[in-house]
Amino acid sequence: MLSKAQIKYIQSLQHKKNRQKSSQYVAEGDKIVQELLQAGMPVKGVYATAGWLEQHHSLVNRMPPGTVTEVDAAVLKQLSSLTTPNQAMALLDMPAPVNPLPAAGTVALALEAIQDPGNMGTLIRIADWFGIPQIICSPDCVDVYNPKTIQATMGSMIRVRIAEYDIRELLQQTKLPSFAATLHGKNIAEFPVIKEGIILIGNEGRGLTEDVTAMATHRITIPRIGGAESLNAAVAAGIICGRLLI
Amino acid sequence: MLSKAQIKYIQSLQHKKNRQKSSQYVAEGDKIVQELLQAGMPVKGVYATAGWLEQHHSLVNRMPPGTVTEVDAAVLKQLSSLTTPNQAMALLDMPAPVNPLPAAGTVALALEAIQDPGNMGTLIRIADWFGIPQIICSPDCVDVYNPKTIQATMGSMIRVRIAEYDIRELLQQTKLPSFAATLHGKNIAEFPVIKEGIILIGNEGRGLTEDVTAMATHRITIPRIGGAESLNAAVAAGIICGRLLI
Repeated sequence: MLSKAQIKYIQSLQHKKNRQKSSQYVAEGDKIVQELLQAGMPVKGVYATAGWLEQHHSLVNRMPPGTVTEVDAAVLKQLSSLTTPNQAMALLDMPAPVNPLPAAGTVALALEAIQDPGNMGTLIRIADWFGIPQIICSPDCVDVYNPKTIQATMGSMIRVRIAEYDIRELLQQTKLPSFAATLHGKNIAEFPVIKEGIILIGNEGRGLTEDVTAMATHRITIPRIGGAESLNAAVAAGIICGRLLI
Repeated sequence: MLSKAQIKYIQSLQHKKNRQKSSQYVAEGDKIVQELLQAGMPVKGVYATAGWLEQHHSLVNRMPPGTVTEVDAAVLKQLSSLTTPNQAMALLDMPAPVNPLPAAGTVALALEAIQDPGNMGTLIRIADWFGIPQIICSPDCVDVYNPKTIQATMGSMIRVRIAEYDIRELLQQTKLPSFAATLHGKNIAEFPVIKEGIILIGNEGRGLTEDVTAMATHRITIPRIGGAESLNAAVAAGIICGRLLI
């Protein structure tokens, strides 16, 4: 059983400032908790229904004593910030900060002011699909440990390192080529496949700032054939990865 | 002012069966209503705040008498099915059914059992960006006139014709090549740009049915470099369009 204080603590992690203070976050969802346990992530607590615990007993049995708590659906609903109820939830330590400068010979995704938690999760999933080891988020991006983001990553945040860093600083300090997604750049289809570089994606409504667009070594555009004003930021990132990385 | 009966009617259009009975639907959002009026769509009613009507008076003045109603924010909230309030809403006639078989020399997107209204809207926006004139939805797709879908299209549903049709029938009857998105097909990067054909995208969780995959003239795959199990259906469609169409 969970104490009132434990319930209150887990609920408090719905807010970014509490997550930052405690360096912990929660991940909700049957499949994602399973993946976290399989991957040997720093899971500090599992809260799940009797049925879920039984189904995944071999994974759960590896956890240290006192870290697995059976809770009923009503308590899980109380702990959750999501509208769709889940059968399992995990409490995790945030990973240690990583060097924001991507290594030579690698590709990174740099995100400026991405606001939608679902888009952020989808972007992490795209990075994971294309084997991009690192994402750099500007400080004004939505928090990657937001419960909605964690759910939208479908487990991919396990495999992608995420750093928070100023994008201008990043571009000043890196020696890698950089590719700014803009509406007025060079046709993406004219670029060869890259082995290293930073792909820059901007805010959902405004795109990249002028500074960052100007600082990039390349400006790239997905040619528009029809009438839409713009593409969803995550879709645009997917299309760019689908041209530059495969 | 809106009568109670009018309010009840507009609210009833949140449900698919009522939309089908009346052949009308609502579009919510400041920008989308503006686009609908600019494009000369069959708008039968505009319900908006005094401020919105004033700001867009040149568009609103073209509407027949009695079709524009000033309402306050509280009434708009009552009419809306969305959580984020808007300043304007439009009532529209559904377009007449279109021939589901795409013409020779054109590209179409065919969707099987897409369930998420946001994904559906994003798919329509992708089609619009790449100049795809037509989408064919299987009967078990989420309704495209769902308010959340209409909002996610960002106005693109104005420019893309949408037909509901059985995908097997479509593939039996068409003479165009067809490209089924699957995890076990030929690398998408090895295909040349196409001028005509049907791009097939399946359900978010299960993908395309085996029947449809087998019936397609080509099976295509976005090669996975990293660890993600899958890509979001709309992102996958975007990546495929970004290889086959540009």
